[in-house]
Amino acid sequence: MRDVAIVGVGMTRFGELWETSLRDLFVQAASDALHSARADHLEAVFIGNMSAGQFVGQEHLGPLLVDHLGMVGVAAGRVESACASGGLALRTAFVEVASGMSDLVMAAGVEKMTDTADVTEVLATASDQELEAYHGITFPGLYAMIARAHMEKHGTTEEDLSWVSVKNHRHGALNPKAQFPAEVTLEAVMRSSMVADPLRLLHCSPVSDGAAAVLLCPLDQAKQYTDRPVRIRASGLATGTMALADRKDIAVLDAVQRSAQRAFTMAGLTPADMHLAEVHDCFAIAEICCVEALGLVAPGTGKSAARTGETALGGRIPVNTSGGLKAKGHPVGATGIAQAIELVEQLRGEAGARQVRGARIGLAQNMGGSGASSVVHIFEGS
Amino acid sequence: MRDVAIVGVGMTRFGELWETSLRDLFVQAASDALHSARADHLEAVFIGNMSAGQFVGQEHLGPLLVDHLGMVGVAAGRVESACASGGLALRTAFVEVASGMSDLVMAAGVEKMTDTADVTEVLATASDQELEAYHGITFPGLYAMIARAHMEKHGTTEEDLSWVSVKNHRHGALNPKAQFPAEVTLEAVMRSSMVADPLRLLHCSPVSDGAAAVLLCPLDQAKQYTDRPVRIRASGLATGTMALADRKDIAVLDAVQRSAQRAFTMAGLTPADMHLAEVHDCFAIAEICCVEALGLVAPGTGKSAARTGETALGGRIPVNTSGGLKAKGHPVGATGIAQAIELVEQLRGEAGARQVRGARIGLAQNMGGSGASSVVHIFEGS
Repeated sequence: MRDVAIVGVGMTRFGELWETSLRDLFVQAASDALHSARADHLEAVFIGNMSAGQFVGQEHLGPLLVDHLGMVGVAAGRVESACASGGLALRTAFVEVASGMSDLVMAAGVEKMTDTADVTEVLATASDQELEAYHGITFPGLYAMIARAHMEKHGTTEEDLSWVSVKNHRHGALNPKAQFPAEVTLEAVMRSSMVADPLRLLHCSPVSDGAAAVLLCPLDQAKQYTDRPVRIRASGLATGTMALADRKDIAVLDAVQRSAQRAFTMAGLTPADMHLAEVHDCFAIAEICCVEALGLVAPGTGKSAARTGETALGGRIPVNTSGGLKAKGHPVGATGIAQAIELVEQLRGEAGARQVRGARIGLAQNMGGSGASSVVHIFEGS
Repeated sequence: MRDVAIVGVGMTRFGELWETSLRDLFVQAASDALHSARADHLEAVFIGNMSAGQFVGQEHLGPLLVDHLGMVGVAAGRVESACASGGLALRTAFVEVASGMSDLVMAAGVEKMTDTADVTEVLATASDQELEAYHGITFPGLYAMIARAHMEKHGTTEEDLSWVSVKNHRHGALNPKAQFPAEVTLEAVMRSSMVADPLRLLHCSPVSDGAAAVLLCPLDQAKQYTDRPVRIRASGLATGTMALADRKDIAVLDAVQRSAQRAFTMAGLTPADMHLAEVHDCFAIAEICCVEALGLVAPGTGKSAARTGETALGGRIPVNTSGGLKAKGHPVGATGIAQAIELVEQLRGEAGARQVRGARIGLAQNMGGSGASSVVHIFEGS
């Protein structure tokens, strides 16, 4: 396999972007990625998108989006793994370049979520429709059960959950692309309205529009496009059971553990080698479960990592310096690519007020549904 | 890149399979593929599916389907390019194995179309929603315009269109997996009810349920699984404009031309080297345009190829020996994989009454929408 690098990035602001259509969101992000690498061609584009069919009545995004980018003819396809669709697009592009099939490839993600009234029902189609969604459960409900199980097992408290939101909003306040670039107090989180006990509004990531794109090429061609390529050291993809009811312990995300093991093995690295991480905090409890499953914190300490500052900017292992899904926003198909972009900016030393000093190796973890799929990438700056 | 072979195949019957759910269709096809190769493990699964979100309220098919196959943990993802989703899944699996990322990989396709009343509206989301579908056009209408343009340009007649259906039903009558394993007369086709002038009911592929799966591994490991591996010599993917209105000549499918050029270049072969082909006959006019765009017949002779027998079993270049989408059925996400399976059976000499004598090299072409995406694979028997 060839070594692969990211040589260009582009993303829109995340938010309720009423004036911008799905195709325009993609074109903005993709154009910025091409310009950032001074590239005027592409060989293939892989687009992560969860549900444009249901959200805006549009499947077949591959040809639609390259057409509107002005690049008719380029090989293109959409990949989907619910909220991990962006991570899956990055993996697909990585393998495409590593194989030798193509030299200059775009991995993009896009979701236009605000144009439908049924967002919660559409998102629920990422759970098991026949065993879960059909009976009325939604994602806040599924993650609330995970949170309750974690509380029972580890003594995790509502305050522990709330510190995750406080931390991620503190980070997001430094990110001009974030949907909610503002700090929130612990009191505000704990007084916000209850969505699914114990998860309150400010424990939940928002409904968002947005797009993000990265350009990949063989590492030995990277200098044509940038002085600061970021190498993709590893890509790990794994699944777990779809329905929560089929899991031995719903407080453990075993797809996340498996995807991390595959990535660490491929990279020849361990969690202790990571300088920062972007993890999938669709709900506050998800970040707690993920930092444990990834081995970024000691077993059982996930609940306190945000409170103690271990995972905050300036801490031992900063997590979600972008603001995470909570503050940056979560246009589901775009999220995995946006995570990669945060790491590229950090590993290039271009993250401004969010910069993690001396960051050279980072990890991105993107998750689908209630953790039934997970993708982990490990990046290294040059 | 490593050489890649198909070492196992499995598919359900295609048809209105009211008693079988999407997940059960997949498990039948995937289990048969595994058994056919005496394989009890998998490293990755790529699933072609156009629109389970809209058809049955289920996204996130990767983890759902490997879970129900009894293989929780295996890397999995869904890929989509409308009716070319199966072809895209095969390409993704091919690159996965060629790269060295995985050794034993499944490419599958599945669609459950009969559980919704809005099939035509769902399929229309494979066209440009804002420029086409929103204004009321459906796929029979789009292909009717292509047929009219072809008639204007080449003098193609309703009888020419009808001979494609007669030929493919003649082939399909020999295929026990076909949805309509029965011959139709020229008169029956030409008297069938008008759907979108000049396309009649028997010029149109049906609405179908079904699944298909193939197993891929490096060619040099193939003997572990089968005595008769079929090598994938090339994979070509390309796009064209999404909306018909943006094309210079709607009687020409330039995405099909591009995808074929890429595949022939990769294989170092020409159309004249092909012994048979499966092409995307979602409507009779599509087969006529595709055999021309692929270079399988001389320019301008696509219209007469079925009538003269050039593309019939026993002819110079048999096309759609399986019965094609018309007679075999068209569960859209499964179609590209079912095409590959027909070629594998032909190149192994296992096609029974449909066998093309001496077939050693074959081509499969799978198309999305009104031709905005196309995937071509070239296979060689051992």
